[in-house]
Amino acid sequence: MKSQTQFYHAGCPVCTSAEKFVAQSLDPARFDVEIVHLGEQGQRIGEAEQRGVQSVPALVLDGQVFHINHGADLSALA
Amino acid sequence: MKSQTQFYHAGCPVCTSAEKFVAQSLDPARFDVEIVHLGEQGQRIGEAEQRGVQSVPALVLDGQVFHINHGADLSALA
Repeated sequence: MKSQTQFYHAGCPVCTSAEKFVAQSLDPARFDVEIVHLGEQGQRIGEAEQRGVQSVPALVLDGQVFHINHGADLSALA
Repeated sequence: MKSQTQFYHAGCPVCTSAEKFVAQSLDPARFDVEIVHLGEQGQRIGEAEQRGVQSVPALVLDGQVFHINHGADLSALA
């Protein structure tokens, strides 16, 4: 079974780069990557926060949060 | 041809987690990931620095640097 993985971003240039180079580079045989744009899906900010996301872009993989470079703090999106 | 990718780390817990969950999750059909332990291979700190690595763990993918969470500044390793 594939791991359900979320990539949270806010459309910023740092986010776009991380999406293109990291999120889309994960092994498709092992991961289903859901791309979540928190700027457009503000109702999911709470979910991201609860999972430990502090800034975007961030990848949540098997429950572990990986902040990739730094685009914007989550608090700036709410 | 596969992309040559470097994952720079220093053996710290944050590094180990990023290696396990991110570096080892890249698509093996598209990437050859070289794991570089800068604590043990101090002679490669200059190379990492020149490529824009500021802290470990960091992934350099197609010339782009992605700092994943924060274990240690590169300056602390030299």
